[in-house]
Amino acid sequence: MKTVVMKFGGTSVATPEKIIGVAKRAIREKEKGHRVVIVVSAMGKTTDTLLGLANEISVDPPKREMDMLLATGEQVTISLLAMAFKALGHEALSFTGWQAGIETESVPRNARIEQIHTERLERVLENGYFCVVAGFQGVDKIGNITTLGRGGSDTTAVALAAALNADACEIYTDVDGVYTSDPRYVTGARKLDQISYDEMLELANLGAGVLHPRAVEFAKNNQVPLSVRASYSDEPGTTIQEVVTVEKNLIVRGVAFEPGIARVTVIYKEAFNGSLANIFTKLAENHIDVDIIVQSITDEFPPSVSFSIKEDSLEETRRVLNDNQESIGFVSANYEVGLSKVSIVGSGMVSNPGVAAQMFDILRKEGIPVKMVSTSEIKVSVVVPETEMNKSANALHNAYGLSE
Amino acid sequence: MKTVVMKFGGTSVATPEKIIGVAKRAIREKEKGHRVVIVVSAMGKTTDTLLGLANEISVDPPKREMDMLLATGEQVTISLLAMAFKALGHEALSFTGWQAGIETESVPRNARIEQIHTERLERVLENGYFCVVAGFQGVDKIGNITTLGRGGSDTTAVALAAALNADACEIYTDVDGVYTSDPRYVTGARKLDQISYDEMLELANLGAGVLHPRAVEFAKNNQVPLSVRASYSDEPGTTIQEVVTVEKNLIVRGVAFEPGIARVTVIYKEAFNGSLANIFTKLAENHIDVDIIVQSITDEFPPSVSFSIKEDSLEETRRVLNDNQESIGFVSANYEVGLSKVSIVGSGMVSNPGVAAQMFDILRKEGIPVKMVSTSEIKVSVVVPETEMNKSANALHNAYGLSE
Repeated sequence: MKTVVMKFGGTSVATPEKIIGVAKRAIREKEKGHRVVIVVSAMGKTTDTLLGLANEISVDPPKREMDMLLATGEQVTISLLAMAFKALGHEALSFTGWQAGIETESVPRNARIEQIHTERLERVLENGYFCVVAGFQGVDKIGNITTLGRGGSDTTAVALAAALNADACEIYTDVDGVYTSDPRYVTGARKLDQISYDEMLELANLGAGVLHPRAVEFAKNNQVPLSVRASYSDEPGTTIQEVVTVEKNLIVRGVAFEPGIARVTVIYKEAFNGSLANIFTKLAENHIDVDIIVQSITDEFPPSVSFSIKEDSLEETRRVLNDNQESIGFVSANYEVGLSKVSIVGSGMVSNPGVAAQMFDILRKEGIPVKMVSTSEIKVSVVVPETEMNKSANALHNAYGLSE
Repeated sequence: MKTVVMKFGGTSVATPEKIIGVAKRAIREKEKGHRVVIVVSAMGKTTDTLLGLANEISVDPPKREMDMLLATGEQVTISLLAMAFKALGHEALSFTGWQAGIETESVPRNARIEQIHTERLERVLENGYFCVVAGFQGVDKIGNITTLGRGGSDTTAVALAAALNADACEIYTDVDGVYTSDPRYVTGARKLDQISYDEMLELANLGAGVLHPRAVEFAKNNQVPLSVRASYSDEPGTTIQEVVTVEKNLIVRGVAFEPGIARVTVIYKEAFNGSLANIFTKLAENHIDVDIIVQSITDEFPPSVSFSIKEDSLEETRRVLNDNQESIGFVSANYEVGLSKVSIVGSGMVSNPGVAAQMFDILRKEGIPVKMVSTSEIKVSVVVPETEMNKSANALHNAYGLSE
């Protein structure tokens, strides 16, 4: 008997009507003879409403209490979904994170799952019940409710699939799979039938939004057979697994892009030691995510370092740099906004060293200036003007033969 | 060091602003040098909203899942209240029912508390923190969330006070104590400084609304020093305890009344055996609460039984009787609506056997017809026309010297 974990996000359970729809979808799965676990998020805007309440009380609420508050969101959904199963004539039991045995570190708002005690779920599945589990939450060793941070429900689904040794972990969402690029902006973008964990990891990190990188990483480490599917259809979606039957032997498998990038350039008076660490430590302390870092030290120009951040953390970055100019030890800083990041991803790159050069050539022919570059084994990212983002993505998508 | 348990109901925590008010109230208590536990209900209309969601899914939702759903209400309040303490510069931790160690029977929606494992609360209090505990909820032996039914938060407060061996259990509400009668309807009704558990139990059962009888019973059984106080002032309220310093040696301590009563009279053909049990068993099976029962068997009239119910269960009662006429074995039934119940309560009655007769005399002088009578050791209740309810209550309140 196969075990299937199905995960539905906030928009898929936003109303009682949609919750009944989710129950019907899961019943179809069970009627194939599978044991079914369903992981759900909080309904639609619930989390925003709860955050609003907290903000009326405190500008800086204690994290433990935020977890206590936010965890009620999924608890509402699981109870309603279990009621829906019963109303449709099926047996189901709902479980909060702690009831499902999801043990985490004691790190409020961003806990990692340490282990899952599956005894109770196993027993309930054995009795032919649906198990409805609250995503995004767990419990630490001394019994505090914790939440898993961004992408938490995806992570819960994957971790449960690993712990239950499930045959499939299906992430239901509002798109029908993983695409070679965003079809809203790139002509000819098409759905991939398969993709490797590493490729998905890069795409997820690059803002391809359908699946949280943490969940992908967990799936990779535990070899969980993962898929991304549409909640509105029975189409198979995209399978994410270790070995991919490469279609057409393509080196590049997807093109991702992201607007709203800013570049910061910090100029030092003379060659420096340790101050690079200073600057990035200060930014990290202030929870500013730095993406690409480019450093140049030549004899002709004063030494400098450039890095990219999200545009919406620009003000905070400016503040941190100004407040710490002395300790960081820089002379001046300048800021450029209106940029975007465009990336190509594909496992095949490892054995094809010319990919980056080829990418720059494609962009050069289109007259697109490249402001920054970053490479990994299976990815090349460039920073280009935001006005050139779509053009860059389309050009790369075509040039690498991804369009149909 | 004294330990104080303070309980605040739904209207006292209906908004973030009110929650901050509750925190301030509790801080004043702590500044007297006490260890403070606060028990809270769900915010204002939360429970109604949750019930509405459930009803959109199912007309008859499983009780276990209703508990799962409703328990989120108090969980929201405790987290917000703990945030409020922190925002006011005090340390506090919130606890759901299961985190507070409140173990109950496995009876969803109406569980009784079996024991409380206070280790964690004791430790947290020892460290000088406020403990904020969710009322109305607990956990059964296999880890299901349960709720305690009506008056659940009062019961949580009293049970915690007993388990922690607290020096006071204070129920904060929107009135400033227990009154000799309802001041909205009875001229000269005044606040009692003290009342005995038994008197309070009768008054609570008689619809004097400030405190649930189950909580009073628990307090009596465990000798918990209980008081009812106003959440909006620092006045001492009414203390409920075993021995009362009787003021003016009054026999009657309070007059309670309740509108919306219906009387049902069932007429049998001949003397019956066992069919009385039949009728009340059937009604109980259908969750219809029967209050006063009067039975008369004489040679002159056909045997009959009369009983009082709440008017809003009249339709259901009619249906149950009609559906089971044969098995119950009665000839006809008639129904009278527009009635009310008026009661006098006082521990002193035990040693004053003439009280009931005196009561009837007072009512007779006012020209008020008595339809039914029920007596206990410390209470006499009569059913009178609803139009005569206020007049009866005022007459009794005056005649027994309760008015100032």
